[in-house]
Amino acid sequence: MALKTGAQYIAEMKKMRPNVYKWGRLIEDVTTDPATAAHIKNVAMWYDKSNDPKTQDLYTTISALSGKRAHRWNTLMTCPEDVRGNEDMKRDGYRSCGSCMGPVCAGWTVMNAAYGPTYDMDVELGTNYHERLKNFMMFAEEHALSMAGALTDAKGDRSKKPNEQENDDVYLHVSKQDEKGVYLSGYKIQICGTAGAQYVMVMPTSGLKPGQEKYAIVAAIPRDAEGLTIVETRRPSDCRVEEEGWDGIKSGTTQGFLLFDNVFVPHEHVFLNGEVKYAGAILGNFTSIYRAAIGGCVAGQGDVMIGAALGMARANGLTQKAFQDKLTQMAINNETTYAGGLGAIYAGKQHPAGAWYPNALLAHVNKIHVALLPWQTKQLAQEISGGVTETGCMPSYKDMMNPEYGPKLIESMSAAVGGEDRTKMARLVEWLTVGSGIPGCMHGGGSPDTAKAVVKGATKWDTYVDYARNLANVEAPLKEEKKKR
Amino acid sequence: MALKTGAQYIAEMKKMRPNVYKWGRLIEDVTTDPATAAHIKNVAMWYDKSNDPKTQDLYTTISALSGKRAHRWNTLMTCPEDVRGNEDMKRDGYRSCGSCMGPVCAGWTVMNAAYGPTYDMDVELGTNYHERLKNFMMFAEEHALSMAGALTDAKGDRSKKPNEQENDDVYLHVSKQDEKGVYLSGYKIQICGTAGAQYVMVMPTSGLKPGQEKYAIVAAIPRDAEGLTIVETRRPSDCRVEEEGWDGIKSGTTQGFLLFDNVFVPHEHVFLNGEVKYAGAILGNFTSIYRAAIGGCVAGQGDVMIGAALGMARANGLTQKAFQDKLTQMAINNETTYAGGLGAIYAGKQHPAGAWYPNALLAHVNKIHVALLPWQTKQLAQEISGGVTETGCMPSYKDMMNPEYGPKLIESMSAAVGGEDRTKMARLVEWLTVGSGIPGCMHGGGSPDTAKAVVKGATKWDTYVDYARNLANVEAPLKEEKKKR
Amino acid sequence: MALKTGAQYIAEMKKMRPNVYKWGRLIEDVTTDPATAAHIKNVAMWYDKSNDPKTQDLYTTISALSGKRAHRWNTLMTCPEDVRGNEDMKRDGYRSCGSCMGPVCAGWTVMNAAYGPTYDMDVELGTNYHERLKNFMMFAEEHALSMAGALTDAKGDRSKKPNEQENDDVYLHVSKQDEKGVYLSGYKIQICGTAGAQYVMVMPTSGLKPGQEKYAIVAAIPRDAEGLTIVETRRPSDCRVEEEGWDGIKSGTTQGFLLFDNVFVPHEHVFLNGEVKYAGAILGNFTSIYRAAIGGCVAGQGDVMIGAALGMARANGLTQKAFQDKLTQMAINNETTYAGGLGAIYAGKQHPAGAWYPNALLAHVNKIHVALLPWQTKQLAQEISGGVTETGCMPSYKDMMNPEYGPKLIESMSAAVGGEDRTKMARLVEWLTVGSGIPGCMHGGGSPDTAKAVVKGATKWDTYVDYARNLANVEAPLKEEKKKR
Amino acid sequence: MALKTGAQYIAEMKKMRPNVYKWGRLIEDVTTDPATAAHIKNVAMWYDKSNDPKTQDLYTTISALSGKRAHRWNTLMTCPEDVRGNEDMKRDGYRSCGSCMGPVCAGWTVMNAAYGPTYDMDVELGTNYHERLKNFMMFAEEHALSMAGALTDAKGDRSKKPNEQENDDVYLHVSKQDEKGVYLSGYKIQICGTAGAQYVMVMPTSGLKPGQEKYAIVAAIPRDAEGLTIVETRRPSDCRVEEEGWDGIKSGTTQGFLLFDNVFVPHEHVFLNGEVKYAGAILGNFTSIYRAAIGGCVAGQGDVMIGAALGMARANGLTQKAFQDKLTQMAINNETTYAGGLGAIYAGKQHPAGAWYPNALLAHVNKIHVALLPWQTKQLAQEISGGVTETGCMPSYKDMMNPEYGPKLIESMSAAVGGEDRTKMARLVEWLTVGSGIPGCMHGGGSPDTAKAVVKGATKWDTYVDYARNLANVEAPLKEEKKKR
Repeated sequence: MALKTGAQYIAEMKKMRPNVYKWGRLIEDVTTDPATAAHIKNVAMWYDKSNDPKTQDLYTTISALSGKRAHRWNTLMTCPEDVRGNEDMKRDGYRSCGSCMGPVCAGWTVMNAAYGPTYDMDVELGTNYHERLKNFMMFAEEHALSMAGALTDAKGDRSKKPNEQENDDVYLHVSKQDEKGVYLSGYKIQICGTAGAQYVMVMPTSGLKPGQEKYAIVAAIPRDAEGLTIVETRRPSDCRVEEEGWDGIKSGTTQGFLLFDNVFVPHEHVFLNGEVKYAGAILGNFTSIYRAAIGGCVAGQGDVMIGAALGMARANGLTQKAFQDKLTQMAINNETTYAGGLGAIYAGKQHPAGAWYPNALLAHVNKIHVALLPWQTKQLAQEISGGVTETGCMPSYKDMMNPEYGPKLIESMSAAVGGEDRTKMARLVEWLTVGSGIPGCMHGGGSPDTAKAVVKGATKWDTYVDYARNLANVEAPLKEEKKKR
Repeated sequence: MALKTGAQYIAEMKKMRPNVYKWGRLIEDVTTDPATAAHIKNVAMWYDKSNDPKTQDLYTTISALSGKRAHRWNTLMTCPEDVRGNEDMKRDGYRSCGSCMGPVCAGWTVMNAAYGPTYDMDVELGTNYHERLKNFMMFAEEHALSMAGALTDAKGDRSKKPNEQENDDVYLHVSKQDEKGVYLSGYKIQICGTAGAQYVMVMPTSGLKPGQEKYAIVAAIPRDAEGLTIVETRRPSDCRVEEEGWDGIKSGTTQGFLLFDNVFVPHEHVFLNGEVKYAGAILGNFTSIYRAAIGGCVAGQGDVMIGAALGMARANGLTQKAFQDKLTQMAINNETTYAGGLGAIYAGKQHPAGAWYPNALLAHVNKIHVALLPWQTKQLAQEISGGVTETGCMPSYKDMMNPEYGPKLIESMSAAVGGEDRTKMARLVEWLTVGSGIPGCMHGGGSPDTAKAVVKGATKWDTYVDYARNLANVEAPLKEEKKKR
Repeated sequence: MALKTGAQYIAEMKKMRPNVYKWGRLIEDVTTDPATAAHIKNVAMWYDKSNDPKTQDLYTTISALSGKRAHRWNTLMTCPEDVRGNEDMKRDGYRSCGSCMGPVCAGWTVMNAAYGPTYDMDVELGTNYHERLKNFMMFAEEHALSMAGALTDAKGDRSKKPNEQENDDVYLHVSKQDEKGVYLSGYKIQICGTAGAQYVMVMPTSGLKPGQEKYAIVAAIPRDAEGLTIVETRRPSDCRVEEEGWDGIKSGTTQGFLLFDNVFVPHEHVFLNGEVKYAGAILGNFTSIYRAAIGGCVAGQGDVMIGAALGMARANGLTQKAFQDKLTQMAINNETTYAGGLGAIYAGKQHPAGAWYPNALLAHVNKIHVALLPWQTKQLAQEISGGVTETGCMPSYKDMMNPEYGPKLIESMSAAVGGEDRTKMARLVEWLTVGSGIPGCMHGGGSPDTAKAVVKGATKWDTYVDYARNLANVEAPLKEEKKKR
Repeated sequence: MALKTGAQYIAEMKKMRPNVYKWGRLIEDVTTDPATAAHIKNVAMWYDKSNDPKTQDLYTTISALSGKRAHRWNTLMTCPEDVRGNEDMKRDGYRSCGSCMGPVCAGWTVMNAAYGPTYDMDVELGTNYHERLKNFMMFAEEHALSMAGALTDAKGDRSKKPNEQENDDVYLHVSKQDEKGVYLSGYKIQICGTAGAQYVMVMPTSGLKPGQEKYAIVAAIPRDAEGLTIVETRRPSDCRVEEEGWDGIKSGTTQGFLLFDNVFVPHEHVFLNGEVKYAGAILGNFTSIYRAAIGGCVAGQGDVMIGAALGMARANGLTQKAFQDKLTQMAINNETTYAGGLGAIYAGKQHPAGAWYPNALLAHVNKIHVALLPWQTKQLAQEISGGVTETGCMPSYKDMMNPEYGPKLIESMSAAVGGEDRTKMARLVEWLTVGSGIPGCMHGGGSPDTAKAVVKGATKWDTYVDYARNLANVEAPLKEEKKKR
């Protein structure tokens, strides 16, 4: 198949075993249930854009593995242009959806992240993980799969390591294995887009050490595998999307808690199993790709925030000029993460296996901006839009439809445009800044503090001291003795 | 009565005519309806704290008008200590409620703001507004009233003045008047705490000019007056407070749209009626008091944010030390607005009528910090608390109570403390940073841009140029000719 | 005498024993030597302003000890108004001088800082330090003394305490003592304004512990005492003030390294001698007063920076409007530290001995802003003023006076005003932002990190956690066990 | 020759006609005069690094025009790697010199900027500018020239255009022309590195319009051409480099005022002459290249600031850990401009003539960070380094060498390392943050406000509004009518 349409994607999703829950009840059909339908519709849009000649170059590429045209999210990225395609596609996608589309992002990144290290393992350890992974990638491409990626474990007490936790389940782990495959148990939480995914790619959330072998697992699992229960989370204003009217924006992502209970995975879908030494490399590749490309996500949503804020200003009867400095600052923020992502991609390297990995230092610097700049962008959006958007301070759709006092409310909301349009735009600003449309980019894909730790590790402090010593003609070495731990 | 208990306050609220709506339906009893009950309970707490010896000095004072002990929110502020008492009470109140209590704030401020200008009017114009106001203040004190303050008009097209709007109702105005009183029509919107108020004090939202006389109205109106309809707004996560369980924090404020339809006000409750020249002075006094004292509100909520973030860190199993720089920055932010408020209060002046008005320049500088620093405080709260709080990314209470998979969810949320407690704390961080507990301080009480306009107006630019010219020995005058408009 | 004129002050300074050095040579007369004359002239201006009816209220007050009018810098501060007078005087002084006047600041603060603790010592230990100090303050007032304050020791290796240093001299200490008095040795460095001071008040730079008795010394020492050698420091562009022409601004402060070699101090001028327990209290009082009042210093210099930047913009032919946002931000910065200082002062307390000490927490919060906000103010000044000011990128006065090409240079500098005036104003911006006029407020009076340590120490973290726990209904105590050190 | 050694470069510089002045006197030999020698030595280092196998790849490349190895600054940049080579070379150069080396930067950029537009002109207008430029570039490569670039005109009254100024000379212009060539008069000011340049490339400082033809001039001029007088500027602490001892860092740039008095340029060295329409394109290309590559300059100097600050901390006896957050922030700042530059380069396009031009929007976003982030980096450097560096508050070298009290001063400066080394490092921090080593990157290469204007112009505001309208289902067009000017 290689290229799928939105309609085909939705038809396939309908056939999956229902194993997603929200509000304490099972969602029978994720494509129609109001808790998930808007998200599925968005993902379908990405499939349709892949088939639209106007956007096909953004959403598809020629697969390095098959030589055929494929959805980008099913391909191997082998050069800067491929990863830039990732970033550019996401910026465009965000501009359309205003939100994050996990099923066409994170699973793809897991496959690419593991591509190099599985090659290394096969060379160094004689395993055949790389072959398995390549086969799976061909399979994913052929079936044009949507794939979530699941890294974050429940983690339990953060002062303890995985193997020190009272409850084994707070990290996903191999509970048993036999000649057919492995059995996985435990909790992956806050996982983006599983409701719209056909497969879930799991991998460790951190580097691992000897003694933690059972947590060293990378694998591909059907979203509706037996033993896997998914519970959607409740986020700000997410319930509104289920309502009639304009209080809720009919878009958005999903985020789930994944409860694994002895989920079986055949060996051919396992790409790491116990080799703790390689967990860190896979994670490093994941974060490099992810934290470079996310510069486009955040820029795209920022573009929408610019549009929403400027739209509100005009709806209020005010001019762009009055807010130009703030709008320009928003644009600077967006282009900063976009350019930072491009810089990290461009400064990357190709792994001998063929995968292109962005520069880790620059990708993590970018993640820090991705985590923090949107806060200023959101603040500026509210500052421009006015008080009605700060706390979403308008009556509900139900009130505005009340035959008695509703017309007066709509009148009270009218300004340079009618009250309905102005309310809708204000609700969009609310959704983007204090609703379920918030980017989730501070901790999503890792926290800024962990990114700073990478910056610390990658900076050659003592060499920099030497630059200064040379310029100032200082003789003392000014080194610090490393303490043993 | 002078001092009222929480129970007395609630009993009185029960007797009021129902005229508050939400979700398209009339709220029969604001003290029990889930949409407003938590707010009423909070206001009642302020009455109770007035009667508690431990907090009485914070919440009450000796009335300058009656010489008796009274709730601060019913008194005239005559010296810096009185306004500091305002700021300190609010910091304490916020620490308990995490939110804004309009009925014990804005109406009080309107009375004090008008106190000086009504005196001036009586002297200059021979009116008797000041006498009326004094009588009303004695009445309010005697009945220990809760009073909202309503400034913000619907405003319509922001590029037009009140008298240029197509629809008269977008600004509150005198629709007719006779010997008994005046009749008010129009919309006041985003008004805080009317659901819990016994009276609403209305005043203009801006300075006024000749030709805009009918908008120049300051008056006291019973919350349940005939012709007044109030519709509560829908804000982020506000519906959760109406649910069972911990998804919603059982606290918060209310914000309403007030629809006036020929509401009658007897002359003795009218304190400005057409004297456009004085609207600006009353507004200036209001903002000086409000923007000084709000330094305490924001500090108090910031204190709760510190506590919630540090609580989450500990619930996660992490130490304070790991986040000390961020926590210290949050404390710096809180104390900055608190100290800025005190500075503005201290640098104020007493009006000949006896009211103390904080320094306008410093109060507006403080408002700018009040508008923007909480954004950093919120960001830091989320950064410390971790990904689970950024987008409120946890399953709903209903899911956690599901007998089948609920226990596993709670297990997945457990860390250094049990999953229930950790979820509750995470929901508090969500409520404070992306829920209905957000401070609303960016535009509340005026936008930072309008505060900056005051800073611009109050700064002696040309004098500062002269300081520089003197130091640099520059002869050219370096003045700019004012352009005529 | 009580009030002295500038001329009298200069006459007295001329009579002092020369013990100040710069450029490797002794300064015979600080009032005429180009290295110090401008500073002395500035200090003289403060004496003259004390005698000028227009400014007398700013620069003088009625002494609480004598009941007579006195220079503020010779008096006891007993109420908020007194400390506000300190802050207001400094803002005015900075507006005139653009710089810091140590001799009318720090010595005064030392006296006030020790006023309460000496009283406590006399009560608790039976000493007579308070009586001595009072007598000295009466003497200082009577002779209208200029007095530097010396806190910062050379400190040696920062990882070691005073008593652990290889070289005793890196902290000022009592080298011996007898019935007549004490003998002091060691280095106080970076001391402001000693060249213009008649006395130097020394006190410890940090709290002290048992075993560090010899460093616990507070004393008053004539600037020209035997055994005291002062070497002026070399700062950015300070040599220009010694040149002809406009390259140097004829103003500024002085900063010296003080080398004590067995300097004798009679007992009556010693106010702490070995009582290590009280060193911290004196230091705490010093920093509270200093870090509150410095809000005015920084605001005053910021006012000059506004004037210089706006003056440059106009000299360039540009309008205020084009830079209004930046200018407003500069004003906000200035008023923030000014108001923060007032808030700290107002929230202070009176010591039983009569001295008023500002609130330590708020004073330290203010110091943090004082340390960092001027960086933004300087940046904005350069941004408004244009490239010519960023690196002082203009030819020298000598070049501009060159008969051959000088006129062309002046022509090249002319814009909306003549080239000479524009160059002068540009040199002022340079002086203020990258010259010897830089405020020195980041580390002056203590570093921001030490101020943050005070914020940390003064904040009730666990109480704040309880506020959050109460709101969220959390049962777990969420306390952290204090580790033993 | 193609590759030149440092010694050869110096020998050539010695032979040039003396036409550079400072301190009112002619500099006879720029290679030995203390005002310029350090800069020449630095430029020589770049020539030597071109010949050093360890750094040859950084400083040289294979010329696209000749196919031979050449200094990067003499070559055409035809692909992203070429411009990245520019950025990487500059980061390395800054790490060695701590400062800007104009003669190997701006002239090169002018040639590349004009490369495309001269091609277009030849195609569109039938001129032969491109051929001339290519020839000159071959000549420059063959002679391995050092070349300054001169854009900034004196500009006169900023409210007037070039042709409206009272004095023609405030913009460089063609004063007359004949069959041999053109004659140039006027002032180019604040030009970097002319003292070390063999040629000066002039070009307009802004876009031009019909009526401004005589200002539309791009040309190559020998630095010592008849009629050209250069006066070096006086910058913070620049005089120290001329002194004995460590008060001055023996490095740095030069910045000159260029006075043109009918300087003759033969036609073959003229690449634009009156075609106003193309001035903007050349300027746009210049700024795109310059503002992308400058990300490396600022990063390189930031690396030195990290080293100097960390060196000071260690010299003080303190650990890296105590300052890690600040150091990491400095590194983030450096990598932000570095990555932003790379992103702009990578997102660029190749002109049909063969030159690679970075993306203008991203290059200007980078310039904004380049202008502002170093302020924070400098602030952090001082914050880490301590009070002694804030205002350079140490005695002069002459004082430290004074036989009488000098040893005590050095003792007072000693900490974890000897007083001499610590003083030297402190002087480096001073030089970098408030001395002649300050980056000059705020206005150098254009001001942040002009970069923001480009961001404004390049952002598709109305398209962004449409993204928001689509998401919110808003019907009103929310467009703003463009006003006619």
